Amino acid sequence: MSDVNIPKTSRGQETMDKICRAAEELFSKKGYYNTSITDIAQKAEVAPGTVYIYFKDKHSIFKYLLEDLSYNIRKEIAIATKNCKNRYEEEKIGFRVFFDFARKHIGLYKIIWESQFVDEEIFKEYYGNFANRYIKRIEEAQKNKQIVDIDPETLAYCLMGITNFIGLKWVIFNDKPVPDEVIEDIMKLLKTGMFV
Amino acid sequence: MSDVNIPKTSRGQETMDKICRAAEELFSKKGYYNTSITDIAQKAEVAPGTVYIYFKDKHSIFKYLLEDLSYNIRKEIAIATKNCKNRYEEEKIGFRVFFDFARKHIGLYKIIWESQFVDEEIFKEYYGNFANRYIKRIEEAQKNKQIVDIDPETLAYCLMGITNFIGLKWVIFNDKPVPDEVIEDIMKLLKTGMFV
Repeated sequence: MSDVNIPKTSRGQETMDKICRAAEELFSKKGYYNTSITDIAQKAEVAPGTVYIYFKDKHSIFKYLLEDLSYNIRKEIAIATKNCKNRYEEEKIGFRVFFDFARKHIGLYKIIWESQFVDEEIFKEYYGNFANRYIKRIEEAQKNKQIVDIDPETLAYCLMGITNFIGLKWVIFNDKPVPDEVIEDIMKLLKTGMFV
Repeated sequence: MSDVNIPKTSRGQETMDKICRAAEELFSKKGYYNTSITDIAQKAEVAPGTVYIYFKDKHSIFKYLLEDLSYNIRKEIAIATKNCKNRYEEEKIGFRVFFDFARKHIGLYKIIWESQFVDEEIFKEYYGNFANRYIKRIEEAQKNKQIVDIDPETLAYCLMGITNFIGLKWVIFNDKPVPDEVIEDIMKLLKTGMFV
């Protein structure tokens, strides 16, 4: 079998989702190395054998989970920004959606950052794919004269850094939603810069 | 004994430094959980008993190492920016020093981010202390009308995010020094913003 078997029925999809949510919770709380397939099966209330219907091993659950989280963040941002009139608005709403997503998936940071130890390639891919999609949207906005002439890759990593660290401060350290005023201040920085 | 015994002789300091560098290398490569005091002693070429002269346990080595790295980054930045004429220049040179430091201490990211699992408080303290010092310097620059009116804490986390993610991209993913052009682009973003 391949590493992941996507279920063909909605019942199967439900079971797979249960396994993923259980894995997400356990990886977040106990870390990858302290979590076993048996733990995941127990948490998901399925037999250990059921986990193996969908996943080859713990590593493939971890990899799938990261791809799934990444896909869902991007999907939520895409839906929320669909009717935005310009790049400024898109960026602002994108921040809101990302921060709220991180709050719903509080273990996101831990899982992504632990991936450095589990599999360096997954870690690189996670941010690399995220950056590549960001770069494309920045390039489009530069063509439309909505973003100034800055290397799109550098800008993408700056924006990802801002998002991740503001999220870290509020969602993880303060255990609170990111206030609107904070997003206003980020937008001010991105609109006019920080230096007088 | 307390968790860490700072040596009184320069010979002792040398031994402690050797232990720290060995621990840094092992924590970076194998992670905290896969590294033992015996491994650290072997790598540092000292007897395991010698490690216990300076450190209570593995946890206290880890904690000390993070404080040590944080102290050294700040010291290098302070020295390099001593003669800067304004906040803009300080920020620019600060980026250069941080990126070069991260390249010399390639395991920095792994160690800091793994600290989430080792001891959540250490992790919070690391970024919290870094942010608090940043905030003070931002507030001073705001008093001197060199930085615009943005919440200093938000700005500190934005700048830390930019530094960490640009470093991640170049130092970790590309395994290269951060090019000067990238720093120029960051400064452009911070000077004029990204939106047309």
